[in-house]
Amino acid sequence: VMFPSRKSHMFRIPALHGLTFKFKSCLSWLFAHVCVAMCFGLKSRRLLHSWKNLIFLLCFSWIRQGLFLVLRDFQGMIQVIIPQDEAHSHVKNLLSNAPVESVVRVTGIVSPRPPGQENPKMPTGDIEVKAETAEILNSCKKLPFEIKDFIKKTEALRMQYRYLDLRSFQLQYNLRLRSRIVMKMREYLCNLHGFVDVETPTLFKRTPGGAKEFLVPSREAGKFYSLPQSPQQFKQLLMVGGLDRYFQVARCYRDEGSRPDRQPEFTQIDIEMSFVDKTGIQKLVEGLLQYSWPKERGSISTPFPSMTYEEALADYGTDKPDTRFGMKIVDIGDFLRRSDIQFVQNALSYPHGTVKAICIPQGVEIVEIICRPDGSLKSLLTRFLGEEQQSQLVQALNMQADDVVLLAAGEEKQCSALGSLRLESADLLEAAGLVLRDPAAFHFLWVVDFPLFLSKEENPTELESAHHPFTAPHPTDTSLLYSDPTKVRSQHYDLVLNGNEVGGGSIRIHNAEQQRFVLEKVLKEDSEVLSHLLEALELGAPPHGGIALGLDRLVSLIVDAPSIRDVIAFPKSFRGRDLMGNAPDYITPEELKPYHIQVSWPLEEKEANKN
Amino acid sequence: VMFPSRKSHMFRIPALHGLTFKFKSCLSWLFAHVCVAMCFGLKSRRLLHSWKNLIFLLCFSWIRQGLFLVLRDFQGMIQVIIPQDEAHSHVKNLLSNAPVESVVRVTGIVSPRPPGQENPKMPTGDIEVKAETAEILNSCKKLPFEIKDFIKKTEALRMQYRYLDLRSFQLQYNLRLRSRIVMKMREYLCNLHGFVDVETPTLFKRTPGGAKEFLVPSREAGKFYSLPQSPQQFKQLLMVGGLDRYFQVARCYRDEGSRPDRQPEFTQIDIEMSFVDKTGIQKLVEGLLQYSWPKERGSISTPFPSMTYEEALADYGTDKPDTRFGMKIVDIGDFLRRSDIQFVQNALSYPHGTVKAICIPQGVEIVEIICRPDGSLKSLLTRFLGEEQQSQLVQALNMQADDVVLLAAGEEKQCSALGSLRLESADLLEAAGLVLRDPAAFHFLWVVDFPLFLSKEENPTELESAHHPFTAPHPTDTSLLYSDPTKVRSQHYDLVLNGNEVGGGSIRIHNAEQQRFVLEKVLKEDSEVLSHLLEALELGAPPHGGIALGLDRLVSLIVDAPSIRDVIAFPKSFRGRDLMGNAPDYITPEELKPYHIQVSWPLEEKEANKN
Repeated sequence: VMFPSRKSHMFRIPALHGLTFKFKSCLSWLFAHVCVAMCFGLKSRRLLHSWKNLIFLLCFSWIRQGLFLVLRDFQGMIQVIIPQDEAHSHVKNLLSNAPVESVVRVTGIVSPRPPGQENPKMPTGDIEVKAETAEILNSCKKLPFEIKDFIKKTEALRMQYRYLDLRSFQLQYNLRLRSRIVMKMREYLCNLHGFVDVETPTLFKRTPGGAKEFLVPSREAGKFYSLPQSPQQFKQLLMVGGLDRYFQVARCYRDEGSRPDRQPEFTQIDIEMSFVDKTGIQKLVEGLLQYSWPKERGSISTPFPSMTYEEALADYGTDKPDTRFGMKIVDIGDFLRRSDIQFVQNALSYPHGTVKAICIPQGVEIVEIICRPDGSLKSLLTRFLGEEQQSQLVQALNMQADDVVLLAAGEEKQCSALGSLRLESADLLEAAGLVLRDPAAFHFLWVVDFPLFLSKEENPTELESAHHPFTAPHPTDTSLLYSDPTKVRSQHYDLVLNGNEVGGGSIRIHNAEQQRFVLEKVLKEDSEVLSHLLEALELGAPPHGGIALGLDRLVSLIVDAPSIRDVIAFPKSFRGRDLMGNAPDYITPEELKPYHIQVSWPLEEKEANKN
Repeated sequence: VMFPSRKSHMFRIPALHGLTFKFKSCLSWLFAHVCVAMCFGLKSRRLLHSWKNLIFLLCFSWIRQGLFLVLRDFQGMIQVIIPQDEAHSHVKNLLSNAPVESVVRVTGIVSPRPPGQENPKMPTGDIEVKAETAEILNSCKKLPFEIKDFIKKTEALRMQYRYLDLRSFQLQYNLRLRSRIVMKMREYLCNLHGFVDVETPTLFKRTPGGAKEFLVPSREAGKFYSLPQSPQQFKQLLMVGGLDRYFQVARCYRDEGSRPDRQPEFTQIDIEMSFVDKTGIQKLVEGLLQYSWPKERGSISTPFPSMTYEEALADYGTDKPDTRFGMKIVDIGDFLRRSDIQFVQNALSYPHGTVKAICIPQGVEIVEIICRPDGSLKSLLTRFLGEEQQSQLVQALNMQADDVVLLAAGEEKQCSALGSLRLESADLLEAAGLVLRDPAAFHFLWVVDFPLFLSKEENPTELESAHHPFTAPHPTDTSLLYSDPTKVRSQHYDLVLNGNEVGGGSIRIHNAEQQRFVLEKVLKEDSEVLSHLLEALELGAPPHGGIALGLDRLVSLIVDAPSIRDVIAFPKSFRGRDLMGNAPDYITPEELKPYHIQVSWPLEEKEANKN
């Protein structure tokens, strides 16, 4: 799909699926092959012998005085010369009058363009097709928008006519590249590393705390299936079942209402292995991404750097740091400890109180508090700081002329505020024209040593899993599990790309007693709903671990798309609607009967409450 | 996974992923590699360097007086010698006392078995591992059934402990082979023929007549998604969108209650192409199956034979004939026209009345009405037939001694009765010990020229689509569409394997007017719900067609499994239940609230009706 630059006397017709040929030396041969190959791709020529003609989607946008037209097929465009002689008047009429985006079959002679008329911007710009015959296979009615202008239309209109949007170069490229990447991943896992592609059910039952799981009513009154958020339980059970290396390109479901850039159904590369540790999974994934990385996006080097959760929070104020640029968070509590600034002293008196800062290089472009060219600070703070303190601060933050420092004082949580400011500042700097993040750079990062449990927001004395209850504790923290679970680090790892979480996984608990302890004693959950998993761990479960990569997000980052909707053929809108087919839709009470459910209309409820 | 027979001095350790080596010449090399390779497969040796030891699932079933034990891993078994010397007493204790199916790590020296102790029935029967160290990684509690005996247990028990069932040789083989077949299919389609793997949504809306589609309540009151029975609409829209060659291993859903050997979710190899005709799709599929066919199941030859729907019904009484054996249906109406048999005369007087018969070779084994060794017939019919008629009948049916003829008189529909009798007879003959169908034979067959429409059973004056409303009419019958639609043949084609439908597809209607005519005028359906598809056909839709192969059924036939449940990792029971995880399950009214639904309990309904 990517068209390489032309070489002298070498032509590459995009539709030929990579066939390169010398032009002058094989003109007659070329004609015969182009005719078939342009329809179906060279390799299947033998397969599909019944269509012997050029077939293209027709694009009239460049028609010039009934002399030329440009045809577009699935892989490129080519210029067709409309014959002007009397003998071909039928062809002329037909091609001159066919509406834009109609589907036509054209046969003709491929020849070099007359000298001086070559178009170096077009991959097929050195040749043209002199039409001999033409046929309209399907005429196109009035388009709701022009294909080449699609990007200017409202997203709702594009979604309604998604099949037109799909004809755009960008979406064709995105979907075809996605397919290629996934195929390479399969080759790496299946053919090179002995993984077994196993399909797991999507009609299952609610997991504890699965409030975001879609329900599917069954024909048994009151009983519902649930569409799982991931094949987590099944992939662990496959390990117990001796399928030592599992992977699946798994459809997952999450009902999150209208969170931006989330889809109710999404895809993950789901991997699980027996007898593996964190390093094993990380090396596998690094090799997987390196192998499947599209050449046209450069190459990625392995191993990926790694950072603990604690470091990530301290240095970047987030557990998914964008490491393409600096502006790390710096603890300046010590420098300010002797200052007279009231709010700083307040902050430092808290149990985990501290003062932290980020230095925005060239921040003068976006804010007004600056480091002057002479090294002095333009800030209210200078009033409270001695000269020595000021110069220490400049040194600690490596401040340069026109840099700006933002500082925040308070409890540890302030880091995430500074983390957000850091990203916000980067956006503002780039909007102001500074180059901070190389758009061609791909910075992968492992984040490790997450806490195993977090305090519940609604009730801080209770604990919940930071990720999920099957995550194994860090080997050196296992004993803490029974004494001080809040201090236990987990064997969870996240994969971050340019500040986006693109994967996450863990080594799992394979010991039934430990799993039961976590569920019952730490999380205070009813372990009965997971009895099948607990029982499985008792019956010869090997040590195991795995990971899931978010395919939609990963591909959208690779193609630099603004949204995951740009790498999904038929995405839902923000509100979970299919604007093309109008889903979800109303269902008659009659159709609901077999499922023993009825709709509780909010209005009716209100009226019922009134009475 | 299949272990080839041993050759002299050549060993093939199953766990080595196909590594064959000379034994005596490389003993030390062998040791180092076996240790790692047996854990993880040879190719990932570099990847996973952290586990240097032999790891197996432990199987004690062959333990002999604490001297030997047999270890099983994911690819085979090997005999381990338990050390008897004092220095290794810990290892001896541990290995002698570990429960069956525990997971252990063993390191040891691989050596040839002492002369005379080789086990030619075991692929690793010429070697053994002398254990040096051992560790129990996870102990196994009391098993609900022995793995090797699983086949004798009730299916319900096996389903409840599916993860144990999965450890059996047969299921490991089935799932691993399935993965390999699908991978080969992907290579053929993606790498060799330029297909694009596109994921289509599973949260869509009900299609007209989609009574078997599961519903998924949305957060908008009264609105439901539907889980589609196939990506039919989406794949056609992809063609309109210029993705000229689409395929997907698609999860599909069908709520059929408790039909035997159906699953509520199943998988199809879903294919669609632009600019293709019937022959193009057929050649593609023949090449696809030939390329992905597992070597150990022989080879299949192409092209597959083809038969019209009419021929199939006339000769086999079914549209999915099992062509592995003869016993074709023969029309004997003409021979009996002059007979005095009342019911025959009655039948022949009907508009489409006829008399047909099948001849069961060696039918004497299963029924008592026979052709005697002297050629005379033992049948009540002989009383009504002249000698000439009898001998004509014997000749027409090619009757041999001990053959049995079954005949049926009536309207054309009798054929399907004879078709069922034909299969029933084949089963009975085989139960009686006759070989009729080679279990290693794979007879593929295309059935073509189906009728486009059928009369509705509940109201024969109305028509319904024989397959679906997007199927194109046969080119030679197009004009009949507007005059006598009942006579129109379609461009639908079914792929049949050994009497099972394993695929079906068609060339689709790409003309909006024709599609609208079929929907509105012939089928009398509201075309509004399909307005997006009709509109798409108006906006430059190329001619296109496709097919879907039923992957579960296909793989089950390849591995000769009695049920598709044997090629699915976690199948549902007959009643659509997951007996391991207990799905579907009850949901609290609280959890139903966001979806604006409530359960209509059948009992409550009854009480309501009483009042």
